[in-house]
Amino acid sequence: LDSSLLRISVHHVSARVPVSAAKLKARRQRWNVRASEMSKNTLNPIRAIVDGMKLTPNPEKPMIALSIGDPTVFGNLPTDDSVLQAMKDAIDSHKFNGYAPSVGYLQSREAVANFYSQAGAPLEAKDVILTSGCSQAIELAISALCNPGDNILVPCPGFSLYKTLAVSVGVQVKFYNLLPEKSWEVDLQHLESLIDDRTTCLIVNNPSNPCGSVFTKEHLRNILAVASRHCIPILADEIYGDMVSQDCEFHSLANLSSDVPILSCGGLAKRWLVPGWRMGWILIHDRNNIFGSEIREALVKLSQRILGACTVVQGALESILNNTQAEFYQSTIGFLKSNSEICFAELSTVPGLNPVMPSGAMYLMVGIEMEHFPEFQNDVDFTERLVTEQSVFCLPATAFEYPNFFRIVVTVPEEMMVEACGRIREFCARHYRPLSQESNDLDQ
Amino acid sequence: LDSSLLRISVHHVSARVPVSAAKLKARRQRWNVRASEMSKNTLNPIRAIVDGMKLTPNPEKPMIALSIGDPTVFGNLPTDDSVLQAMKDAIDSHKFNGYAPSVGYLQSREAVANFYSQAGAPLEAKDVILTSGCSQAIELAISALCNPGDNILVPCPGFSLYKTLAVSVGVQVKFYNLLPEKSWEVDLQHLESLIDDRTTCLIVNNPSNPCGSVFTKEHLRNILAVASRHCIPILADEIYGDMVSQDCEFHSLANLSSDVPILSCGGLAKRWLVPGWRMGWILIHDRNNIFGSEIREALVKLSQRILGACTVVQGALESILNNTQAEFYQSTIGFLKSNSEICFAELSTVPGLNPVMPSGAMYLMVGIEMEHFPEFQNDVDFTERLVTEQSVFCLPATAFEYPNFFRIVVTVPEEMMVEACGRIREFCARHYRPLSQESNDLDQ
Ligand SMILES: Cc1ncc(COP(=O)(O)O)c(C=O)c1O
Ligand SMILES: Cc1ncc(COP(=O)(O)O)c(C=O)c1O
Repeated sequence: LDSSLLRISVHHVSARVPVSAAKLKARRQRWNVRASEMSKNTLNPIRAIVDGMKLTPNPEKPMIALSIGDPTVFGNLPTDDSVLQAMKDAIDSHKFNGYAPSVGYLQSREAVANFYSQAGAPLEAKDVILTSGCSQAIELAISALCNPGDNILVPCPGFSLYKTLAVSVGVQVKFYNLLPEKSWEVDLQHLESLIDDRTTCLIVNNPSNPCGSVFTKEHLRNILAVASRHCIPILADEIYGDMVSQDCEFHSLANLSSDVPILSCGGLAKRWLVPGWRMGWILIHDRNNIFGSEIREALVKLSQRILGACTVVQGALESILNNTQAEFYQSTIGFLKSNSEICFAELSTVPGLNPVMPSGAMYLMVGIEMEHFPEFQNDVDFTERLVTEQSVFCLPATAFEYPNFFRIVVTVPEEMMVEACGRIREFCARHYRPLSQESNDLDQ
Repeated sequence: LDSSLLRISVHHVSARVPVSAAKLKARRQRWNVRASEMSKNTLNPIRAIVDGMKLTPNPEKPMIALSIGDPTVFGNLPTDDSVLQAMKDAIDSHKFNGYAPSVGYLQSREAVANFYSQAGAPLEAKDVILTSGCSQAIELAISALCNPGDNILVPCPGFSLYKTLAVSVGVQVKFYNLLPEKSWEVDLQHLESLIDDRTTCLIVNNPSNPCGSVFTKEHLRNILAVASRHCIPILADEIYGDMVSQDCEFHSLANLSSDVPILSCGGLAKRWLVPGWRMGWILIHDRNNIFGSEIREALVKLSQRILGACTVVQGALESILNNTQAEFYQSTIGFLKSNSEICFAELSTVPGLNPVMPSGAMYLMVGIEMEHFPEFQNDVDFTERLVTEQSVFCLPATAFEYPNFFRIVVTVPEEMMVEACGRIREFCARHYRPLSQESNDLDQ
């Protein structure tokens, strides 16, 4: 072998791959692209459950979906014209096409601060961070407060995104119970028993998805007392804030807090009926400088990762908040209450069902006395068959970590609600089995 | 002591704090809310550098900022009227207020797929994921492909967000050099030398921020060859795709790839001049099913964390892509080229400066022969003094991990560009020192 030839070929190889043989071995020799652990740990329980269900409606009956948490789908709850006009004005102004600061325009943050300021919880622009929907607000809050290995306290039943976001970043979730027999108030003892030295955040969702419950001032104070005793900051998900029936009052947690610092998350999605616009916010309610500059700066830094809300919506925000008339809000609330009452009245006379009357948000939970429906294993089974036979789909509350209930969204048009309740009655009548004397005997 | 009284008080305590003494000790006794590691690891080099600079303009001269990567700030580059009209039509349709699927409306994804489909890189709606800006596209792509401890290959100089996003999730960044003397082509040997068994992604940014360079077809093929040899998927950041001067051609990397799977990230921000609208996308260009369903599903799951782009912009997208006239794009490109030429012609005759003529994007890099400016330690120092004396601000390229250069944004109005270049000339003339004979002697 000609040694000069060898030299050339060695040189050629090293020019292309100028690394040691050891390193070379370590490299991939074939394609093997794997999805990250984080993506594998991003679990969506609603999708996991619904995708696993056989949802074949009865061809004789048109489908009625009481499952969709989007108030716009049936067209009966349009947003206000003034809200749409504010968007068009923002577009026509030509002022809102460039980059906004990552936390949002100062003027828009000021508008939010003014809108939500209260005597016990004053806000300035610096306390507001605009986000891409309330979802990103929750994501930023969790990401700012929690490290992998920490844990957060999450309501059960509750909105599934809390767990999805926490688990995907290695944060553990501990569920605290809500009590249906007490209008879904928090089981305070249970809540308190879950706290340990790695607990870095308590999530309180009021008004509640999926319960439709609205906490009293007294109950909120009791929750604050637990957080205060154990020095746990609160993430208050108040996206349904002010969406409560006329005979009830919404109290923001921050306005009642003297010593517990709170990140309050909200947005335009629900009250203004534009969930697709992805406009959310975090209201920073510090107390005694506990958050201090550290948590503020953490939120600002995290907001710089992908920037937040669409500038056109940001540009419209001040006008949306200040120019939407009270009648718009009242009309939505009135409709939701009336629909809830229809649904509750209907279902509370159905043997085997236990609806819980809501006071806010846009949901109503219904307990299933499973022992009276021996054909069905659980709420998933029950709601699946309800589709097959009656073409009515309600989300099984297993999706909210709360089996043997299902959730009804009360934003559907009234005649649909009436029709759906009638079909649920028919379904239950067909499958209801009274407890036999024998089993009664055994119970005693 | 009455034992029944004792029982009562014990009961009372345990009702409030029903945990063992050991657990109790572990709990927090005082407030100590700390920001997460992730937030601490979310570093924004541009902010870190700019915030550390003393930017006090010369009061005698109005400030000219050549630093802002937002083409809308000076009002001379408005988006097209048809783009604004598409938004207003979307609002008036009342169809785009509800939730869209987390990956975006099917119709909007179809429109993007049709717009970017090429013979060598066909696209269908299923290959498109809409995101909140190109930033979120990059975030999702990195999060889908990389685990903590993996590393990614990032251009140097390059857009700082790659590092910000990667480091915040524990992914290591390895910088590969671009070569200014070769129109900022990739140093392929250096690139290849960095690859190891934990390398899970190669980021290619073409056209480039901050270089304004546009790679030839041949060079792109050479990059693909490296990725192919080592089986590394590519994240192609093509947000400036098609923003190249008339005498040059943009080739999307995917259209040249036969075996390397590519996630191509783009958006409306730059070409349509609406960065605030936060409309971006990932185009999934799989090859030989290497991404397969696994990476697709990972991206879909990650998109469900916070949902993506504003539905109004999504609703307008089809019309924006299909109805914007060629003249609009050409006029932007023509302006950027003319401004680049003015800037390049001016600065290439300034002793001590070495501008590199760009072919695309909206940037121009200028090398500083630091040895001729002994008063200044580095590019940060140089650009800081340029503000103090001449009220002209250019971003020091240390912000792009590339010292001794600065970046000029060529979107400013022409007269500003002319004025700014004149002032830079004056500044350099004042501080330039020819190398002395002695130092020349020493060099020999
Ligand atoms: C309790 C709760 N929080 C947050 C959200 C998310 O809101 P957004 O659509 O603004 O991200 C929802 C949406 O259904 C919700 O029910
Ligand atoms: C190379 C590059 N990629 C991505 C982005 C982010 O784009 P967007 O504003 O759509 O998030 C930018 C913005 O400047 C950029 O320069």
